[in-house]
Amino acid sequence: MRNIKLTIEYEGKDYNGWQKQPNHLNIQGEIERAIESVTREEVELIGSGRTDAGVHAFGQVANFKIESDFPIEKMATAINSQLKKSIRILKAEEVPIEFHSRYHCHQKTYAYIIDNSEQGTAIYRNTTYHVSQPLNVEKMQEAAKYLVGEHDFSSFKSSGTSSKSSVRTIYQAQVLKEQARVIIMLTGNGFLYNMVRIIAGTLVEIGLGNREPKEMKEILEAKDRQKAGKTLAAQGLFLMNVNYEEKKV
Amino acid sequence: MRNIKLTIEYEGKDYNGWQKQPNHLNIQGEIERAIESVTREEVELIGSGRTDAGVHAFGQVANFKIESDFPIEKMATAINSQLKKSIRILKAEEVPIEFHSRYHCHQKTYAYIIDNSEQGTAIYRNTTYHVSQPLNVEKMQEAAKYLVGEHDFSSFKSSGTSSKSSVRTIYQAQVLKEQARVIIMLTGNGFLYNMVRIIAGTLVEIGLGNREPKEMKEILEAKDRQKAGKTLAAQGLFLMNVNYEEKKV
Repeated sequence: MRNIKLTIEYEGKDYNGWQKQPNHLNIQGEIERAIESVTREEVELIGSGRTDAGVHAFGQVANFKIESDFPIEKMATAINSQLKKSIRILKAEEVPIEFHSRYHCHQKTYAYIIDNSEQGTAIYRNTTYHVSQPLNVEKMQEAAKYLVGEHDFSSFKSSGTSSKSSVRTIYQAQVLKEQARVIIMLTGNGFLYNMVRIIAGTLVEIGLGNREPKEMKEILEAKDRQKAGKTLAAQGLFLMNVNYEEKKV
Repeated sequence: MRNIKLTIEYEGKDYNGWQKQPNHLNIQGEIERAIESVTREEVELIGSGRTDAGVHAFGQVANFKIESDFPIEKMATAINSQLKKSIRILKAEEVPIEFHSRYHCHQKTYAYIIDNSEQGTAIYRNTTYHVSQPLNVEKMQEAAKYLVGEHDFSSFKSSGTSSKSSVRTIYQAQVLKEQARVIIMLTGNGFLYNMVRIIAGTLVEIGLGNREPKEMKEILEAKDRQKAGKTLAAQGLFLMNVNYEEKKV
């Protein structure tokens, strides 16, 4: 038995999210089907976690087990030949049999990309969220600092989540400006349901001057979803990478 | 009578090019229709030049004349409200009545964007051209230098072009590497039909090692389309900007 780890890029627009489900186009199901047509074996693809409908990934990670001796160096190209171009396997590697892409994940990095041009971008309209009023990036960066560390993120969690604890650790929280784009980058040991999109919504309110940066601390402490900003659209959210190294402290 | 200059971004994928034509979705026609629904006047939109089916623009320029006193500072937003999101008016300015976006154009800059990752990109698949084999950017840059100056570009012109002369001046020709992307940037006083896409096709052959950089000079001198590389796909081509200042020498 071999264990194969995949690194995957996808544009989420046309999919109903990562998770396999009947009668809805989903990324996990599409990749399983492509692997099965290459290896002629039934496989179960385990993702590092779900991404919601419309969310993109530059570096999702998943693994699956096979008996097939299909050469590893040809596997990414072979699976890609069976996939739509909105999903690309960037890398396929053989890993120890005990590797589990969800259980062994130490860190994830998400980016939320805001197009802050006045009239919006035509070319990147499906992969950015448009805010036409100018954002104060320094204030957003100041507010983002309060997120770093171990906190109960209940204020930044949509209802309907199944996680027992709302405590997560954020290692890095940055707000960057690149031409007309404002990019929110968060690295943590895990993220609650809609957590990045609610944090982004709160940071945008701060960037617009509707709230002060220090309110981020108060919102965290309130542990109340009603105190935070709105959940921004899925199209701005990217799973950037999943890290299996020891935790960075 | 007022003369209005527009700066326009568009994703070319869904359009049969810039030029107005019956029964085919085109960018000029879409924008004219949007202007007319805002100003309630029939207008003729003059572009700096055509772009082909599938070609994108970050900064196409066009102008039109109106009697309407519609406020200029609200015009871009108003026109955008009548357009699909794959076309955005970035700026609307009032200019002297004699301004003509085609006749008065001094320089244009085009970019041809190549995705040089092994497996291709899912997210930017419609706005890049994929070359999976590694490109030697230094060799491409060396070859691009031969293009700078006034030359007869007959070797880089598709048949069916109506221009009388094939002499054009290239002011700048650069090949840049940005992560997995290789970007060919050309600034000139004008470009022949398919000229950038044929130059890109020739530079890719040089980057792959199938031809030597100095062959670019021989191809130019041959004035023979058969000597140059193939015409690369429209989806990698971007009209970056159109310049109305005096020529840079």
